[in-house]
Amino acid sequence: MAYELYYWDGLQGRGEFVRLALEEAGADYIDITREPSRGTEAMFGIMKSDSEPHIPFAPPFLKDGALIIPHVANILFYLGPRLGLAPEDEGLRYVANGLQLTITDFVAEVHDTHHPIDTSLYYEDQKPEAKARSAAFIRDRIPKFLGYFERVLRQNPGDPGYMIDNALTYVDLSLFQVIEGLTYAFPNAMAKRKADYPALLALHDRVEKRTNIARYLASSRRLDFNEDGIFRHYPELDSEE
Amino acid sequence: MAYELYYWDGLQGRGEFVRLALEEAGADYIDITREPSRGTEAMFGIMKSDSEPHIPFAPPFLKDGALIIPHVANILFYLGPRLGLAPEDEGLRYVANGLQLTITDFVAEVHDTHHPIDTSLYYEDQKPEAKARSAAFIRDRIPKFLGYFERVLRQNPGDPGYMIDNALTYVDLSLFQVIEGLTYAFPNAMAKRKADYPALLALHDRVEKRTNIARYLASSRRLDFNEDGIFRHYPELDSEE
Repeated sequence: MAYELYYWDGLQGRGEFVRLALEEAGADYIDITREPSRGTEAMFGIMKSDSEPHIPFAPPFLKDGALIIPHVANILFYLGPRLGLAPEDEGLRYVANGLQLTITDFVAEVHDTHHPIDTSLYYEDQKPEAKARSAAFIRDRIPKFLGYFERVLRQNPGDPGYMIDNALTYVDLSLFQVIEGLTYAFPNAMAKRKADYPALLALHDRVEKRTNIARYLASSRRLDFNEDGIFRHYPELDSEE
Repeated sequence: MAYELYYWDGLQGRGEFVRLALEEAGADYIDITREPSRGTEAMFGIMKSDSEPHIPFAPPFLKDGALIIPHVANILFYLGPRLGLAPEDEGLRYVANGLQLTITDFVAEVHDTHHPIDTSLYYEDQKPEAKARSAAFIRDRIPKFLGYFERVLRQNPGDPGYMIDNALTYVDLSLFQVIEGLTYAFPNAMAKRKADYPALLALHDRVEKRTNIARYLASSRRLDFNEDGIFRHYPELDSEE
């Protein structure tokens, strides 16, 4: 039975981390809200159910048969071994999950660069605060997080071409997406900084060239980044050139 | 061998979610930074290591033998079955992890009520923005998250006295802590709202009375809430009485 992915239509967003794993593995999946016969109503049907025992708080969530699994890191922890994208060793699976949760935290901070005060308001209603938060994000948080991921690669005793041990995992795919997203949202800041993270950039480039990922990126299933997603390009929030 | 918990000394913070599980289970553990012979230096020794292959991004992390596991939800996913605080059913373990990750997101939003712009600055340097963010948090986010947890309890076909199925899990313990923390940080807002969440408040009260939890709460190991932690009481951020 095909996996069912539930996420907002029209943007990459957090759902993209799951899509990249499903696409790399060539898994059979349905992107429910993009199916004309299902749509966003099918997603709300589960979220608003007053009888379903395992209602998710928010998308994305995955349905595998009757099981409903919410949160990106949780979905990837579940899918990883099934898709051949998790370490064989059980202990290393918790290492992978720890790295993915650090990515989760980073992505939440990316979101807050354009919504620092109130998620129910538009970006335009919190622009000065967004500018202040973005400045701190570019100055402190990008180097802190990317510096950390670079160190993990360098200190990997298995193969420093991967985040964990000596084979591709979903964590590598997610870091590809983080670099893509940051480069879209903050092109000036990233152009100045990229040279500090050679191992991470090399990982990004290798993931981009993988057969199934390259095919996915060239397909209509890969939406462009846009200003409804997590990674948004507002030139006024980026560094000066 | 005792579990080793690594977290900042002097505050409950995110480490407290792990402590509650260890205490409920009566597990053998060492709170490393509070050990005079180890202290915070022992924690930094791991975080700053340039040879350790699985460096954590931030505390808390758990050490079980050679394995280092960072992030609260990840630690609890690992410990849950070992401490008898996870569902027996494998699928339900992902349900538990999904709920714990929703708690993680909520706790991150609690943190941002006093640090909406820049985590490297003091609260005092971002007070107007903290006031705006707290107002939105109290108005929209507390009801959204607590309303969700209340629904999960009500819709639990097993036993609506627990979040999952018909037995205590680490998720129940974490929700006790969330209610404790919110009541400390936002006493006026919570006094007005508590009646909306009867099942959640009943869960809180039951957890508080459990033998091992009651013993822990009365011990010197349970630090008081304070303004170094996640849940901080700044009266100016709370609702009017």
